[in-house]
Amino acid sequence: MGRTALWTAISDSLTADIAGGRYRAGDKLPTEAELAARFGVNRHTVRRALEALHDRGLTHARRGAGVFVASRPTDYPIGRRTRFHQNLRAAGQEPGKEILALETRRADPREAEALQLTEGATVHAYDGLSFADGVPIATFRSVFPADALPGLPDHLRETRSVTEALARCGVPDYTRTSTRLTAKAASATQALHLRIDEGAPILRSVGINVDPDGRPVEYGRTWFAGDRVTLVMGDETD
Amino acid sequence: MGRTALWTAISDSLTADIAGGRYRAGDKLPTEAELAARFGVNRHTVRRALEALHDRGLTHARRGAGVFVASRPTDYPIGRRTRFHQNLRAAGQEPGKEILALETRRADPREAEALQLTEGATVHAYDGLSFADGVPIATFRSVFPADALPGLPDHLRETRSVTEALARCGVPDYTRTSTRLTAKAASATQALHLRIDEGAPILRSVGINVDPDGRPVEYGRTWFAGDRVTLVMGDETD
Repeated sequence: MGRTALWTAISDSLTADIAGGRYRAGDKLPTEAELAARFGVNRHTVRRALEALHDRGLTHARRGAGVFVASRPTDYPIGRRTRFHQNLRAAGQEPGKEILALETRRADPREAEALQLTEGATVHAYDGLSFADGVPIATFRSVFPADALPGLPDHLRETRSVTEALARCGVPDYTRTSTRLTAKAASATQALHLRIDEGAPILRSVGINVDPDGRPVEYGRTWFAGDRVTLVMGDETD
Repeated sequence: MGRTALWTAISDSLTADIAGGRYRAGDKLPTEAELAARFGVNRHTVRRALEALHDRGLTHARRGAGVFVASRPTDYPIGRRTRFHQNLRAAGQEPGKEILALETRRADPREAEALQLTEGATVHAYDGLSFADGVPIATFRSVFPADALPGLPDHLRETRSVTEALARCGVPDYTRTSTRLTAKAASATQALHLRIDEGAPILRSVGINVDPDGRPVEYGRTWFAGDRVTLVMGDETD
């Protein structure tokens, strides 16, 4: 069996390991040296097999950290009604949120404009991380009018869910009036939180949600890891 | 006047040059050496002034090529009716398209599925570049069912506009059924066409357009330069 067949066999074996759940999304693969020992081949052959996995989108390498199993990108519907927990469950993934910061402070000019508040009005700012099956998929900052929603931070701390916290504050429903999307390079802090490389592609979404009377209740910015999320706009029935 | 004031003054002067149109979007600024000579300062001071421009998003540097004036990102509405020429004119920018390749060939499996064709059916593939005020903002590949639209390539060659070419083929209107968006890193070829760095953030949009009877007429993929375009989803009136 020549070298070509060897790396193909190793690549197939690792693919079967991933498909079979031996290595799961986000797991680090063994090092080249460990794989070389396991398969009884040289590191050059292992490297060729790993390249094949990478080319097929099954893994991603992080400088200095190793090779990781890629997640299948989460299909994330966006439109008039965008709900994080609902979207993740619909994709068959377990949603999770982590609070990075929760503070009540004065709005900056952009936040005040988005929420139709007077400059210097008070807002609650909720910074956090979103997870799909335990893998971070986005960082976000959501800002809410504090005077209209005084009890919100406690509800956010308790539930972590914007939908749930707004409901407990007497906002039973909300809809998106606009969404602005662009691609950015991950900052060092975003890269750290999302466990991606600095400069890796990020999809930034900026949206405004309003209550049934049209009053802005949330100005939200989300930075999705580009290789973990596909935003899907489709026909909407409501 | 200390060094701090000097670089501030130079940065203000260059900002005024950009605002006044002496340097326009996409223009290369003079080199550090040229600016040092013009202002009678050392290159360290010029570099500090250029960093300030970059931090404010007024310029972007390309490795080995120099410093360029950034365009204001184009607001590009996406939704059920997405029209390139109309969108650009609404943003106050001059639309342009360049044909990179136009060929009639067999559909690959993904294209056949998107256009609801049998595998191996014939399609027209239109590869090109989109411009706003002469600056490339996107590369695209649009694929059309060849049997249903036999004369399309000639009309595309003549008009470059998908909307216009479809109209001439008897498709007076079309709407978007779905759009999938994600962030990617620019490939070497994309970087070359878009005049950005390899690995720079790209917003990829994949969409299917259907005619008034619901038949797919276009399967389109567009790769927008992240710092030149903001996709805007909003309330739609139709």
